Amino acid sequence: MNRNTYNQKVCLSSDNSSPVHPSVIQAIVEANDGHAPSYGDDFWTKELEGHFEETFGRKVKTLLVPSGTGSNVLGLKLACKRHESVLCSDMAHILTAESGALESVVGAKLIAVPSEKGKVYPEAILKKLRQETFAGKHATSPRVLSITQSTEVGTVYTLDEIREIRKFCDREELLLHMDGSRLYNAAVYLNSPLNEMAKYVDFLSLGGTKNGLAFAEALLIFHKEAQKGCEHQHKQSLLLVSKMRYLAAQYLALFKNNLWEDLASLANNRAKELGAIIQANPRFQITAPIETNQIFFTTPREWIPYIQENIACYVWNDETAEIRFVTSWNTSQNDVEKVRQIIQELK
Amino acid sequence: MNRNTYNQKVCLSSDNSSPVHPSVIQAIVEANDGHAPSYGDDFWTKELEGHFEETFGRKVKTLLVPSGTGSNVLGLKLACKRHESVLCSDMAHILTAESGALESVVGAKLIAVPSEKGKVYPEAILKKLRQETFAGKHATSPRVLSITQSTEVGTVYTLDEIREIRKFCDREELLLHMDGSRLYNAAVYLNSPLNEMAKYVDFLSLGGTKNGLAFAEALLIFHKEAQKGCEHQHKQSLLLVSKMRYLAAQYLALFKNNLWEDLASLANNRAKELGAIIQANPRFQITAPIETNQIFFTTPREWIPYIQENIACYVWNDETAEIRFVTSWNTSQNDVEKVRQIIQELK
Amino acid sequence: MNRNTYNQKVCLSSDNSSPVHPSVIQAIVEANDGHAPSYGDDFWTKELEGHFEETFGRKVKTLLVPSGTGSNVLGLKLACKRHESVLCSDMAHILTAESGALESVVGAKLIAVPSEKGKVYPEAILKKLRQETFAGKHATSPRVLSITQSTEVGTVYTLDEIREIRKFCDREELLLHMDGSRLYNAAVYLNSPLNEMAKYVDFLSLGGTKNGLAFAEALLIFHKEAQKGCEHQHKQSLLLVSKMRYLAAQYLALFKNNLWEDLASLANNRAKELGAIIQANPRFQITAPIETNQIFFTTPREWIPYIQENIACYVWNDETAEIRFVTSWNTSQNDVEKVRQIIQELK
Amino acid sequence: MNRNTYNQKVCLSSDNSSPVHPSVIQAIVEANDGHAPSYGDDFWTKELEGHFEETFGRKVKTLLVPSGTGSNVLGLKLACKRHESVLCSDMAHILTAESGALESVVGAKLIAVPSEKGKVYPEAILKKLRQETFAGKHATSPRVLSITQSTEVGTVYTLDEIREIRKFCDREELLLHMDGSRLYNAAVYLNSPLNEMAKYVDFLSLGGTKNGLAFAEALLIFHKEAQKGCEHQHKQSLLLVSKMRYLAAQYLALFKNNLWEDLASLANNRAKELGAIIQANPRFQITAPIETNQIFFTTPREWIPYIQENIACYVWNDETAEIRFVTSWNTSQNDVEKVRQIIQELK
Repeated sequence: MNRNTYNQKVCLSSDNSSPVHPSVIQAIVEANDGHAPSYGDDFWTKELEGHFEETFGRKVKTLLVPSGTGSNVLGLKLACKRHESVLCSDMAHILTAESGALESVVGAKLIAVPSEKGKVYPEAILKKLRQETFAGKHATSPRVLSITQSTEVGTVYTLDEIREIRKFCDREELLLHMDGSRLYNAAVYLNSPLNEMAKYVDFLSLGGTKNGLAFAEALLIFHKEAQKGCEHQHKQSLLLVSKMRYLAAQYLALFKNNLWEDLASLANNRAKELGAIIQANPRFQITAPIETNQIFFTTPREWIPYIQENIACYVWNDETAEIRFVTSWNTSQNDVEKVRQIIQELK
Repeated sequence: MNRNTYNQKVCLSSDNSSPVHPSVIQAIVEANDGHAPSYGDDFWTKELEGHFEETFGRKVKTLLVPSGTGSNVLGLKLACKRHESVLCSDMAHILTAESGALESVVGAKLIAVPSEKGKVYPEAILKKLRQETFAGKHATSPRVLSITQSTEVGTVYTLDEIREIRKFCDREELLLHMDGSRLYNAAVYLNSPLNEMAKYVDFLSLGGTKNGLAFAEALLIFHKEAQKGCEHQHKQSLLLVSKMRYLAAQYLALFKNNLWEDLASLANNRAKELGAIIQANPRFQITAPIETNQIFFTTPREWIPYIQENIACYVWNDETAEIRFVTSWNTSQNDVEKVRQIIQELK
Repeated sequence: MNRNTYNQKVCLSSDNSSPVHPSVIQAIVEANDGHAPSYGDDFWTKELEGHFEETFGRKVKTLLVPSGTGSNVLGLKLACKRHESVLCSDMAHILTAESGALESVVGAKLIAVPSEKGKVYPEAILKKLRQETFAGKHATSPRVLSITQSTEVGTVYTLDEIREIRKFCDREELLLHMDGSRLYNAAVYLNSPLNEMAKYVDFLSLGGTKNGLAFAEALLIFHKEAQKGCEHQHKQSLLLVSKMRYLAAQYLALFKNNLWEDLASLANNRAKELGAIIQANPRFQITAPIETNQIFFTTPREWIPYIQENIACYVWNDETAEIRFVTSWNTSQNDVEKVRQIIQELK
Repeated sequence: MNRNTYNQKVCLSSDNSSPVHPSVIQAIVEANDGHAPSYGDDFWTKELEGHFEETFGRKVKTLLVPSGTGSNVLGLKLACKRHESVLCSDMAHILTAESGALESVVGAKLIAVPSEKGKVYPEAILKKLRQETFAGKHATSPRVLSITQSTEVGTVYTLDEIREIRKFCDREELLLHMDGSRLYNAAVYLNSPLNEMAKYVDFLSLGGTKNGLAFAEALLIFHKEAQKGCEHQHKQSLLLVSKMRYLAAQYLALFKNNLWEDLASLANNRAKELGAIIQANPRFQITAPIETNQIFFTTPREWIPYIQENIACYVWNDETAEIRFVTSWNTSQNDVEKVRQIIQELK
């Protein structure tokens, strides 16, 4: 392998494969200005904290971390006592793609709620909740619900759905965590400011890397009680990097003039265009509504090799021959055109 | 606080406060070239892995992680079964400055061995080992010894000392982990290639951030058995970042033309010069031999405010009025001169 | 509440509610003979260990523990490295009724396999296994399959089924754990010696309390590698009691003249008789084949209060109005008659 | 080995080696009366809970567990959030003789405070506390102090000392846990009711097994906040036994007519007599004041084999040739006489 091989294909494997936005790189370069206090006591981090308080309109504790898994797990660690557990969708990233981190690092049980197009609804959640609590002390005590916005299959909870979930959580005395590794794409889809979604949650794992950063994720802790000791747990959970300014600077760039919005819009638009191309081919079957920057579709199995030869992408479900395309801020119209041509060659 | 305030002082607080070397920044910029596979399957990471195999002259599994605490804890997690424990010095970073991460993430007990000038010796280690094993199943089973090179007080194990420790470990069936967050400074002091020290260890936490990188540490796993499943534990321990190329590229820059050696030499030299200045003042007392880039000394307590007003630095031990100075690759001769003047003003 | 109230009802709530067999009580009394070494170095424990080696026909490490949850969790803790996970049925006790102990104490993920009448089969297990391993390092590495014999709904794996599962485990490099808290009832049902089932497994949680003991469960470790350090983990997992002789003596009594067989036979027979009574009532619906000492059936919801007023028993599933009856070694024919009468009064 | 060999020696190895008091055995026999609710919902457990509320004069949550290690670890688990740590003496059982259970099961760090004759004092505790908190978020947050009464070397905190420690804890916002596996012996020594000591603590691990029970320890949780969820953690920590009545019945017997006091007095008295014998031999050196039922003394090394041939006992410290004798409720005056003779034969 060399660098070029990979770039000869259209890359739709993951928004984690995309490069870093030039403004963000520039911000890293500019942050490299003499000495700065370490471990988050620097100028950039403080500025970012202030910015988030403003954006989200309430007291919030911000912890910058290097991975989305870290952000999710740290949030849920702060939410749960040792006998408490976490409700999530049956396709939640924390359940299926974080290598058992929650169980290992936190020791908490995950309770999978059947999802519909990636989303979970109060009725299904309640059923699982009742099942668990029915066993009393012989089972765990569910404490927090984790939802993903946009979901693992690219769909988006509407604001009404989030409000319903919040009401449900209040009724059942659950905290609400949002895995927002692709929150920006949801915000653009809903045409809604970030806070319109965030204001209903107790913990927000606010993405960064998937929307143009190199290496930064943010955990926002709105829940007062959970803020206690969070700095210790930040360090203890292996997530406190020393030269924090280089993470904070990236976020400052992402939020300057709402760059995040432009980048997420670009990615969503390209996905819509790709979706139309796929839709047009009767032998493909789109399997989830294309609302953000992910496209899921089944394909004749014999087409997979040719597709993968020309497009970097993942087979999502081997059994059903389902493929996932992910666009990102730098997916170009040229990329879309290439995909159109590649697909035209399939028969 | 603003950026400038901090830089008005001479900054000797930590090598974590120093900026990133321009070549490293340049490497980040250059790595930002189109798409790349995520999670370590990229070109840069592969190249780095090859480079480390060459440098260390044997099969090694390299895992890049975002924090030194992560590197230490992941290495020790791979070394220990669930009933096994870790021997370390009583001033080891993992014991005193990682917020209980080992206990929390791994569940392992740390057994503190009394140190002399930061170093531990076979006799003292054996005594602690015997104490623990004396209780049989009622105590843990020590499995790994962790030493720090250069140590937390800046001293350096000689090659003979490391060889003695290795022999001891073999005799007692212990694995050997080296916390090498400042290994480069030790290598320069010993005038010895990195591998001359590393070849005796089973796990090496090879620093990066403290010697000019922005956010990258490396765990090198030489022990065959411990390599099994290490990628899973990399992810599970919240340490697998998605856009790995931006970490690998930094290391490639650090190892190009042995840049690491120049940077560590600079830091060590500045420390020697500062040491001479401190030594010259009869009211200071240097408390550990200055072998690398750290200087520890006691001061008349009444001088502390003036020192801290002009030099960013930590009081290491409040009781004994002991101060720590840390130099880094960008501590300048001008900085040294300023310190000379500041100290001359003390009386 | 007082003692008598509870005994005025027919007690079919759990075999954990039954008293201790007189021979077992007698054994406790007789073990109370002067001093004895503590923590398992006593005469009784040694004798029991020898007895189990003979019974199971191979080298085995026996650890006596005070709870079935402890036995399961300790076995699985010894089976799994830190990145490895456990496959089990979706109604496994470890998943549904042990308060998240595996996740909390071991940090391992449980992967639930859809069950049929309490049992899991290779095809369904394989599907879940493939789903998990498909994600590579982003998911856990399943290492052990845990099956329950007899199952949580009283059904029994046939010897052929166990052999198939063993073959499957060998093929997939999985270890096999058997939760045998009611193994005796299965053995009686299959008319097979204990070892006929046990010889296919790597770990056996051999029950005691549910079949007439006061307070003792046994973990039998057949897997050589997992025996290493098991005594440390016995203590570390809070499961090593000091006066072990009082536990071992109970098991010796249970195995003297195969008392276990008589007791399990009694329980199974009473269940069969009760089953016939329930079957005879057309408004009840038996929901799982009655093979051992448990009976599950749905009932008209309005009958539940009267049933519970006269029979101590659990509503197993509130939604479907499903009730569980459990017989034990001391369920009498008189109890059966009383149940017949109570049921006759329902209309 | 057979039963008799062990009893041919005078047994002073441990109070865990002593038999169960006949009244306690009788209580087990009597509890074996028909069915009873499981998992602590039985008559005996309820009665005991009421009894403890009366004895200790305040709302308390009682959890019966099968091991002292379990009692300590569960108490400390309930006391600490995930970033919090435990202060204890450098010879605390939880630190030296519980196989890393606290680190493994709770994930908490233990901070060892230098002890004097087994006891820790505010000044030394404060020093360790300050050392830990000095590092801020880079270290843990000490939350609870655990003291042992009577201590691991048989000494006793006076009531004044306990009051001082309580005041210290209040000042430093620490909770106080007491490992009372031999609390009875301390109560007898102080000639003080149990509650006179217990009223200053937030958690009490109240012993049982060492003072004449077969298998029962009690965790008493006085701290309100920590009571939340404690039943879940009881189960989750593998410590909830199903037939709880057989544990509760033992405690009821121990507290009937203050049997505990008689038994502890006997043990203490025998220790005093043995102490006088040892004291009389100028070549022995008693190493800790004999206040309860333990005697520690150094001996000429060459005498050890003969002593151990005739007296079951442990070498406590191999280096210093220190031996430990432990008396129990059934150490007889005849045993004391035998020891006198054995010692007379040494030369």
